[in-house]
Amino acid sequence: MHYRHEHIENSPEFVGLSVSEGKANAPIVNPYLKKIAKKSPLSIEQYVNGIFDGDISVLAQAVTLIESSLPAHQKVAQRVLEKCLLGAGNSIRIGITGVPGAGKSTFIEALGMYLISRKDKKLAVLAIDPSSERTKGSILGDKTRMEELSAAQNAFIRPSPSAGSLGGVARKTRETIVLCEAAGFDTIIIETVGVGQSETAVHSMVDFFLLIQLAGTGDELQGIKRGIMEMADGIVINKADGANIEKSRMAQSLFKNALHLFPEAESHWTAEVLLASATEKTGIDKTWDMIERYIDFVRQNGYFQQNRNAQSKYWMYETINEQIKNNFYNNKKIKDLLKQTENQVLKHKISSFAGAQRLLDEYFLQ
Amino acid sequence: MHYRHEHIENSPEFVGLSVSEGKANAPIVNPYLKKIAKKSPLSIEQYVNGIFDGDISVLAQAVTLIESSLPAHQKVAQRVLEKCLLGAGNSIRIGITGVPGAGKSTFIEALGMYLISRKDKKLAVLAIDPSSERTKGSILGDKTRMEELSAAQNAFIRPSPSAGSLGGVARKTRETIVLCEAAGFDTIIIETVGVGQSETAVHSMVDFFLLIQLAGTGDELQGIKRGIMEMADGIVINKADGANIEKSRMAQSLFKNALHLFPEAESHWTAEVLLASATEKTGIDKTWDMIERYIDFVRQNGYFQQNRNAQSKYWMYETINEQIKNNFYNNKKIKDLLKQTENQVLKHKISSFAGAQRLLDEYFLQ
Repeated sequence: MHYRHEHIENSPEFVGLSVSEGKANAPIVNPYLKKIAKKSPLSIEQYVNGIFDGDISVLAQAVTLIESSLPAHQKVAQRVLEKCLLGAGNSIRIGITGVPGAGKSTFIEALGMYLISRKDKKLAVLAIDPSSERTKGSILGDKTRMEELSAAQNAFIRPSPSAGSLGGVARKTRETIVLCEAAGFDTIIIETVGVGQSETAVHSMVDFFLLIQLAGTGDELQGIKRGIMEMADGIVINKADGANIEKSRMAQSLFKNALHLFPEAESHWTAEVLLASATEKTGIDKTWDMIERYIDFVRQNGYFQQNRNAQSKYWMYETINEQIKNNFYNNKKIKDLLKQTENQVLKHKISSFAGAQRLLDEYFLQ
Repeated sequence: MHYRHEHIENSPEFVGLSVSEGKANAPIVNPYLKKIAKKSPLSIEQYVNGIFDGDISVLAQAVTLIESSLPAHQKVAQRVLEKCLLGAGNSIRIGITGVPGAGKSTFIEALGMYLISRKDKKLAVLAIDPSSERTKGSILGDKTRMEELSAAQNAFIRPSPSAGSLGGVARKTRETIVLCEAAGFDTIIIETVGVGQSETAVHSMVDFFLLIQLAGTGDELQGIKRGIMEMADGIVINKADGANIEKSRMAQSLFKNALHLFPEAESHWTAEVLLASATEKTGIDKTWDMIERYIDFVRQNGYFQQNRNAQSKYWMYETINEQIKNNFYNNKKIKDLLKQTENQVLKHKISSFAGAQRLLDEYFLQ
């Protein structure tokens, strides 16, 4: 089965990316592979075997394949993915969000180093940021922000797929989770910033959703995006150190009160609010302890698997619904008619429903 | 223009419902019309003229036409609607929700009688309850629950369109709003119970969204459906009378605190929490005062029209999106393949996205 190091340029399965095309993010750990990879992309089996062997370089190339928009790459990516699915699912997936400046990267680095050095975990850190342009220092794009973690043996850090539709970015990230799990990563962190619907997307692909907050002037709740508190399984007030401790404690009780007012979550878990300082490395252990207690709790009451199944279905239906909408709204005749119909609706010439019907007739009867 | 009382059986516009078919809800106010209507349905112009004349009997028949699923009825209904749109929009639309037992009907009756007798309003009360079966005493179906209002001259009460998809029920209700406005009703109340997405639907067709609550044991917030508090422009704690007053005051401050924790609404309005007793007719005037202050506020800051436009667009796009989904999921080949694909996704044989792609290929390439 293992012919990772073979030359197979004549194989029909010879499709893929060379490392230089792939802009792999992880350091190349196998110099021999690096040498041959430069001249020849990998076969499907090389990808699959490399991933199952935990080869970070191959993993990085496979992720690049998934992110590629070339149909030939996508074809291979899907076959690699299909085989990797058999080895996927065995990880704890954690979503982390928070406004810019909340210290997400520093916190993830602290938590990540704790998991790798104290808990013997293999950690992959991914990101979803549909607005990202890598050159502008988007989340995770600036690797120097997680210097220690980037250099760690058991960590795989990957920036957000570059700008695209949220649906596309989400698909790539979910597929990357599968590859990482097949490669033996038992803890996956997905970072996001609160842009558009990206938090909902991340929430729909993780087991635990963590909100990172800062203590402010007492009205911090007003600044939080609607709906986000209700998604959180836990909140960490970061930068709770030095002169900031008292304010952080007040913010903690404010958030606790607010959470108490929310209806019970489907998981039956009550979200917790913790204090932490990523720079002083305090509260990191308690955060992990909370996540572990949550996972135990939802594994016992069945919600863990139920939620994962619901997420699998969600993404299938979400993808279908997105695609059929794209097909409709990108239809040339519809494009021509849409603005005009919308205006007639706004001017009360026709009802919203008559407007919709006209467009639907145009689409289905053409 | 007015040939409401003519026989026009030979007219090409002769399509419609007789009153007996129509099961009209309002009392027949014109005995002559009743006599002829029994033998002959109305023409489009008869409908339109009758509605613009404020003839409640004709209005009721037109609503029945809108609710009919017969294509011939729908065709007439849409033409009537188109003409009525020109006279629509001049009302305040109020959504009212609350759990069963909160006293919605009694509250609406009290508010309605106050509006008619003290404020010289013409009030239409509609309902959205996609789960309703009229025979089982669904909301508004049991007219005896609003006895006084039902008999009032300037009130038009219409139960929820019978069971159907939420999209269908919402369309019918929105079209009924247009007819009521054309008939001169300046205040429209839409009642709903918190079934599925019906609150979102009602919220998307009203100017003001009112949540009716009861004082409980202090944990009433836990029982509220997620997201509903954030939709409310106002909350009324009903049954705040007798021995219940102290508890109601506590509930009031609990809700006020909770609302304070929410991010600011797009309207920039801060939701208010009032006490009322529908049976003792207290707090009714304050509720109306709140609604009027809200309307003034959003008219001045431009949100009123902005929201109405957004709602018109929302329903156009929502209708399109619903219909293209229906077309997909009701496709015979898709139906055959869907469950099987879903199972393969759940068993990790294929990814959610590959599953979606297979179905999309089947649909678009067939």
